[in-house]
Amino acid sequence: MKKVVVIGGGTGNFTVLNGLKKYNIDLSAIVSMADDGGSTGILRDELGVLPPGDVRQCLVALSDSSRLMRSLMNYRFENGSLQGHNFGNLLLSALEKVTGSFEKAVEEVGKILSIKGKVIPVTTHEVRLQMILNNGKVLQGEKEVYLSTEIHKGYKSIYLEPFPQANPHAISEILNADLVVFGPGGLYTSLIPNLLVEGVGKALRETKAKKVFIVNLMNKKGQTPRFTVKDHLNELKRYIGKDVFDHIIVNNSEPPKELIDDYAEEGEMVKNDLESDPRIVEASLLSNDLKEVQKGDALKRNLIRHDSQKLANELMKIVDSF
Amino acid sequence: MKKVVVIGGGTGNFTVLNGLKKYNIDLSAIVSMADDGGSTGILRDELGVLPPGDVRQCLVALSDSSRLMRSLMNYRFENGSLQGHNFGNLLLSALEKVTGSFEKAVEEVGKILSIKGKVIPVTTHEVRLQMILNNGKVLQGEKEVYLSTEIHKGYKSIYLEPFPQANPHAISEILNADLVVFGPGGLYTSLIPNLLVEGVGKALRETKAKKVFIVNLMNKKGQTPRFTVKDHLNELKRYIGKDVFDHIIVNNSEPPKELIDDYAEEGEMVKNDLESDPRIVEASLLSNDLKEVQKGDALKRNLIRHDSQKLANELMKIVDSF
Repeated sequence: MKKVVVIGGGTGNFTVLNGLKKYNIDLSAIVSMADDGGSTGILRDELGVLPPGDVRQCLVALSDSSRLMRSLMNYRFENGSLQGHNFGNLLLSALEKVTGSFEKAVEEVGKILSIKGKVIPVTTHEVRLQMILNNGKVLQGEKEVYLSTEIHKGYKSIYLEPFPQANPHAISEILNADLVVFGPGGLYTSLIPNLLVEGVGKALRETKAKKVFIVNLMNKKGQTPRFTVKDHLNELKRYIGKDVFDHIIVNNSEPPKELIDDYAEEGEMVKNDLESDPRIVEASLLSNDLKEVQKGDALKRNLIRHDSQKLANELMKIVDSF
Repeated sequence: MKKVVVIGGGTGNFTVLNGLKKYNIDLSAIVSMADDGGSTGILRDELGVLPPGDVRQCLVALSDSSRLMRSLMNYRFENGSLQGHNFGNLLLSALEKVTGSFEKAVEEVGKILSIKGKVIPVTTHEVRLQMILNNGKVLQGEKEVYLSTEIHKGYKSIYLEPFPQANPHAISEILNADLVVFGPGGLYTSLIPNLLVEGVGKALRETKAKKVFIVNLMNKKGQTPRFTVKDHLNELKRYIGKDVFDHIIVNNSEPPKELIDDYAEEGEMVKNDLESDPRIVEASLLSNDLKEVQKGDALKRNLIRHDSQKLANELMKIVDSF
């Protein structure tokens, strides 16, 4: 059975895993531990736990349990002192407290949800994302980075504080993979934070696995304005130490003009400036299902988004080619 | 297989169920829905859910799952906005929201915990316990009743507001039982609230099941001071409409004098004034395990308490006698 490892955080991971879980492959998700917004941020601050939100999304994506259990995990309390907390975040945090280990908590929730595959925190150290902009401003935490509209003016550095060692399980997954899937996801908030963990870049350079980068559909204003496919690859190369990707999956279909107009305030579509690069895999990857937008943080408000199944099809063509 | 139905609420139910679950019987717990203190009270007020606390204790008592899952259910958050909430209460409340039904939520948690038997809310209507004292004071809610030290001066009435119909499943359990176990538990806070639900008294009068009352070990100051076994039976008779009990289980061993002295402020041991009544089953029922007091609400701070196994032994002698 081929071993496929998906690296990222947030909604991107959810979409890729949700598509891939139907296939007969050995699937793992390596998840960024930099999230500190919303329910996750409150739990980190108040309980001193590791961030449950992104892990929860991956667990739900890989779950083979009832629709009810998946709804429960994503259920968001609407009132009172619990307002905004996803039930699944509380489950992971309570289990971390009871077992004394976030990894053990993730494993136990995996059992409860009968997940297919494994979910692995990229590090089990408590870290905060920091970004120092060219204008001297310091963005403290992923949430501040996510909300910043000044990153495109240039930044001096981005790092995790304190500099964490990788979870050895994450490293061995990468080294033993047949295919590593990187992205899609927020460049500075979901993707690069994985590369700021000691050992991850090295593992990506050394693994014999084929490496695929799934390029985002949209740029984000103030963060990656007018970033092309090449710009994305250049940023990743800075943190991996080498352009490691064997395949680059890019969407080639256009969303309806109204949607693009609606999104004009937030960003534009990513342009492919590497058309002649043999590594490029172009395909129509847009989700047609405009109505199925969840209000929870699983799919945020992206109406222009990847289709799980179309992405999985392209990835499985690569898996089946070797 | 003999069908045994335990009626009560709070710690008493937990103790009885925990002992009985090891035997080859068909076991059900009917649980009071009047609780409104602590975590349960906050969830009722903020989310408008039915009270999860007592149900959670019964589910844990009947659970056949790992020690970890049981610890998780009773885990109490210690900090921040979640402080004081038991994880299991949050699970039941979230499932009630997701499924739209408290009974369904209880059933689902029963599956997650692999419980032996069933846990059945005595009513699925939202109710509040009310007690009007002789001095005109109105105690609003179970918590106020629990904290009151004036009940022994006399009360005019105790009722649930609004007057609820019984859960039909609770009634059919009582009618189809071979043995009904009532108590132990707070007379006004855990036991009588079950009898204030329309249909429960009638079912207890009509069922062909043998009915056992387990008398509390201790009286509670300001509530049942110097209540004898007979006083307890008289109070229950008022709400059942008849003295229905076939067996009355009473402890006959003395705790160490130091413990009685420690408890002098809170109440004294219940005296048995029905020694010649043929229904009386006297046995040594005290728990010797003084150290195993839980800090959660499962066993509160009662050091003088029933031993699960000793209680179950006496109950099983009755079950095996018919």
